[in-house]
Amino acid sequence: MARFTSMEHLRFLLFDVHRVEELFSHERFSHLDGEQAWMIIESAKLLAEQEMFPYFKEMDASPAQYDGKGGVRTHPQLQTIIRKAAEQHWIGGYASFEHGGMQLPEMIFSTGHHLFQAANNGVEGYTGLSAGAAGLITSFGSAEQIATYVPRIFSGEWQGTMALTEPQAGSSLSDIVSAATPTGKGHYTVKGQKIFISGGEHDACENFVHLTLARIQGAPAGVKGISLFIIPKFRPEADGSLTYNDVHCAGDFQKMGQRGYATTHLSFGDNDDCHAYLVGEPHKGLSYMFQMMNGARISVGQSAASVAMAAYQASLQYAMERPQGRLASEKDPSQPPTLIIHHPDVQRMLFTQKAIAEGALSLAMECNRLYDLTQVTQAEEQQRHQLLLEILTPIVKTYASEQGSRSAALAIQTLGGYGYTTDFPVQQLYRDLKIMSLYEGTTGIQSLDLLGRKVTMEKGKALAFLAEEIQQTIRSANAYPELQKHAETLVQELHRIESVLGHLTRFAQKGEIDLYLADATVFMEMASYVVIGWQWLKQATVAADRITKKDFSRNTEAFYESKIHTLHFFFRYEMPHAEACANTLLAHGGLTQVKNMDYFA
Amino acid sequence: MARFTSMEHLRFLLFDVHRVEELFSHERFSHLDGEQAWMIIESAKLLAEQEMFPYFKEMDASPAQYDGKGGVRTHPQLQTIIRKAAEQHWIGGYASFEHGGMQLPEMIFSTGHHLFQAANNGVEGYTGLSAGAAGLITSFGSAEQIATYVPRIFSGEWQGTMALTEPQAGSSLSDIVSAATPTGKGHYTVKGQKIFISGGEHDACENFVHLTLARIQGAPAGVKGISLFIIPKFRPEADGSLTYNDVHCAGDFQKMGQRGYATTHLSFGDNDDCHAYLVGEPHKGLSYMFQMMNGARISVGQSAASVAMAAYQASLQYAMERPQGRLASEKDPSQPPTLIIHHPDVQRMLFTQKAIAEGALSLAMECNRLYDLTQVTQAEEQQRHQLLLEILTPIVKTYASEQGSRSAALAIQTLGGYGYTTDFPVQQLYRDLKIMSLYEGTTGIQSLDLLGRKVTMEKGKALAFLAEEIQQTIRSANAYPELQKHAETLVQELHRIESVLGHLTRFAQKGEIDLYLADATVFMEMASYVVIGWQWLKQATVAADRITKKDFSRNTEAFYESKIHTLHFFFRYEMPHAEACANTLLAHGGLTQVKNMDYFA
Repeated sequence: MARFTSMEHLRFLLFDVHRVEELFSHERFSHLDGEQAWMIIESAKLLAEQEMFPYFKEMDASPAQYDGKGGVRTHPQLQTIIRKAAEQHWIGGYASFEHGGMQLPEMIFSTGHHLFQAANNGVEGYTGLSAGAAGLITSFGSAEQIATYVPRIFSGEWQGTMALTEPQAGSSLSDIVSAATPTGKGHYTVKGQKIFISGGEHDACENFVHLTLARIQGAPAGVKGISLFIIPKFRPEADGSLTYNDVHCAGDFQKMGQRGYATTHLSFGDNDDCHAYLVGEPHKGLSYMFQMMNGARISVGQSAASVAMAAYQASLQYAMERPQGRLASEKDPSQPPTLIIHHPDVQRMLFTQKAIAEGALSLAMECNRLYDLTQVTQAEEQQRHQLLLEILTPIVKTYASEQGSRSAALAIQTLGGYGYTTDFPVQQLYRDLKIMSLYEGTTGIQSLDLLGRKVTMEKGKALAFLAEEIQQTIRSANAYPELQKHAETLVQELHRIESVLGHLTRFAQKGEIDLYLADATVFMEMASYVVIGWQWLKQATVAADRITKKDFSRNTEAFYESKIHTLHFFFRYEMPHAEACANTLLAHGGLTQVKNMDYFA
Repeated sequence: MARFTSMEHLRFLLFDVHRVEELFSHERFSHLDGEQAWMIIESAKLLAEQEMFPYFKEMDASPAQYDGKGGVRTHPQLQTIIRKAAEQHWIGGYASFEHGGMQLPEMIFSTGHHLFQAANNGVEGYTGLSAGAAGLITSFGSAEQIATYVPRIFSGEWQGTMALTEPQAGSSLSDIVSAATPTGKGHYTVKGQKIFISGGEHDACENFVHLTLARIQGAPAGVKGISLFIIPKFRPEADGSLTYNDVHCAGDFQKMGQRGYATTHLSFGDNDDCHAYLVGEPHKGLSYMFQMMNGARISVGQSAASVAMAAYQASLQYAMERPQGRLASEKDPSQPPTLIIHHPDVQRMLFTQKAIAEGALSLAMECNRLYDLTQVTQAEEQQRHQLLLEILTPIVKTYASEQGSRSAALAIQTLGGYGYTTDFPVQQLYRDLKIMSLYEGTTGIQSLDLLGRKVTMEKGKALAFLAEEIQQTIRSANAYPELQKHAETLVQELHRIESVLGHLTRFAQKGEIDLYLADATVFMEMASYVVIGWQWLKQATVAADRITKKDFSRNTEAFYESKIHTLHFFFRYEMPHAEACANTLLAHGGLTQVKNMDYFA
């Protein structure tokens, strides 16, 4: 069986770096212990290995496909996967006992999903999406809505989706025009078109529950006039029967990657009989939706990290088995070729991948931990976790998807020409990964969110908390001589972020908001290096502690040394680019405010 | 008709920046003038528009495919393309009149091919490969070999190929084992396997002429025992008839991109009847092959630049037509959405693409010009051009393919979710482009070539000449106040390269050759920024000259301003990463010489 992730790394992150066991002291998670938690993860691994990974290539070769009549054909294994995942609580396991869940911390639930994402990333989407949709209903829906929809989604019979994007609006949700008309009978009727709806129609589930954004007649313009509705494909009647609800799949989008994951175009109310059920209050839909969206953004970041991890493992395996060429210092051509893993450039490519994939995965777990803490803490403590989560969400989503693509390219490169052929999985992983920088808000949108909202929100409190967290890691790291140099670099990089923000803020203060935000994506890149550097310092500090204590009960000495080695690697090869980004940001702005279109020709 | 390149940019590069007309004063090219040259380019554009571009998507959807019986089925249009390209001299046009060519400078011949590469990159390979194979025979083959093969390749009836890679050897050509046995009858018999042979078999040509590396029985080990052979699929007999030559296509490789371009596995001599004809002297095959290989490397670099250019043009067109969202400074949601080209982040993505694609294309043309100059100069002057060409070859190949991939990713990103769907060409261009960093020596191999060979060859003469060329551009640029800042940066960057080399050379002097070369790829990245920065300064200097003189006879003022704008952009957004690479290189080495394999797990 080919490896698609590292269980050692997962255990290290879960127990040693992000200390999942601390959560178990809270009432909500007190039914769990470390051993159980790990058994749950191992069950996910088995499911991923047996039911998902073997179909990874096939699902790409025979993509989900519109049948021309309103249906989407998928690979026959999909139904088995959804059913088994549901049975093993990988759709509803995060939910509270009262809603039929297992009250699993997100840290554990998401680590399970990481295994699915690494094994077969397209297929994980179906279950992850259902989990998110049910969570949204549970948070903001009525008791009746919860009872009607959540159990059938958790059982895998019904597919949950999120239906936001419209053809004319794209990323600009304020321009949504899907129209909801009140009927006075407890429901609205909706008319509208939604595109890019993942899992919006397929033959592995019986019904579809679309969490849909639409505008109630007479609602204010912009995002303050958007409401959230449940729109099932078949609406449950009072007697439990199902009536077709005028939700038509009008086509699909064929994609470069994630080809097993159906991407659909939905048409609501072609025959004026599409019933829609308002969730919560009118006009608050976007703020509700952001619960699911934020979860989805972290999940996409984690998924990107997982795909990069799978590509790393595939290229590592190849590098360990493939003899080719000799070191430059070996001039005798009659000597046998060396395994390519001994070539420095191959090691550079492997360590780059390891630094990106494991670093991004650590950040995803940091986010999942913060989410769990928001569920079990109150008041100021909760606000702190919430703000930290909010500022890290666009970063994990963007770093993992952008650098993950670079990482997967290095996996191809490690295999040479073979990596580009369909005989090996790395090219599929490279194709699959590219969608992650588009899902749930593109890199540009995430960067505007970071610089335009998260950095400034609550008078900069989120950023201040993040800096405190990083400084705490720096203090811990300073106990270990070989980490001090990098801890010092991180101090400098925090100062650099401050200078850059000081520079940019002057534009904002002058009301030049477009200039303030113009290079948000470059700021995102700079901040990401620092945040991932922080995650590596955090991992290395734990590793140094175990080495100092000679505590190799959980992992080998080499394992811990490798974490410190990868820290060195990250700070040598990746971190210098943070300064380069800063130099771009500190130059005077305006190069991307061109009015003369002839400049582009 | 969608635009796939910029004719204005081509004309600017050809006539203003790289001054093709200077070549016409040399005897070899004296039959040409500027007007003719441009007509030839325009004829290539017509061919690309009419016969190639319309089939770009189809050839991806119905890839070249092995038929299970030794044949490869291709798209029916391929035969038309090869025939028409041949008729219009796009296979043999570069050759001298005596060999049936048009004595076109490579600058013109390759600019024609750029149009094909931008329109339909996979299909250009067939004709480019034939041109290179015929050139190799012309340079080193006997008069009889030339007469037998070259005219049929130039006519498009026969396909020329290069057959180097073997399954067990990959990039390590010294490990080639294909065996040639002398027969005493004017030919050898060959037995062996070759993989990744582009165009090695297909249904659009009648015969295949494989320029093949093999080892004559008893030859020395390593690269000094490799000979070059012509191995036709059907061997021409004395009476002009063709006999099957025991060359069997044993399969193909299905690829992530360039799917219209057949990639084959060839088996020579399964029935001990494969005749092979030695080219030139025994054991000198690799040095001969490097003529074709070097040409192919520049061509791959140009092809990568061309694909990036096509992706830029496609995303530019989309950005000019797609309304979405509003500027951050526009808070009124009832205002109509703006075209996305007005969003600063979209402009950043477009200028990044423009800087990469047009910059790489300028470097490719610089290389083609140097090649032409080696053909018409002698002695020291010729050596200078030759050395400059040698040091720039790995750079153009690597910069264009690595940064081109990043550029094509930005094209996808510009289109958002649509960019990832098969409804738009940018995802295909992204997939196609990824092969360029693997063809003709991977990025790792190119980087070893640059740092291990080209930088040190002839006591560093190549690098010294390159620095002189850059300094000359710097001097010219200093005449224009708005360019001086960047000219000064380039001076500093040249010093930085010197410091880095000084640092690295200490490893080499201590005999630590593996350490000297360990970060060759990072050195390549650093050097590339400087070389492309030079190309932008060169372009901007010409533009500043035209603006100063108010000479807008060839292009508009906005066109010239845009070149200067893109120079500013490149130096602001891209150039700072050269320093980051230097910081990596200047740190003490050794992180990629890990012996403990557990570090990767």
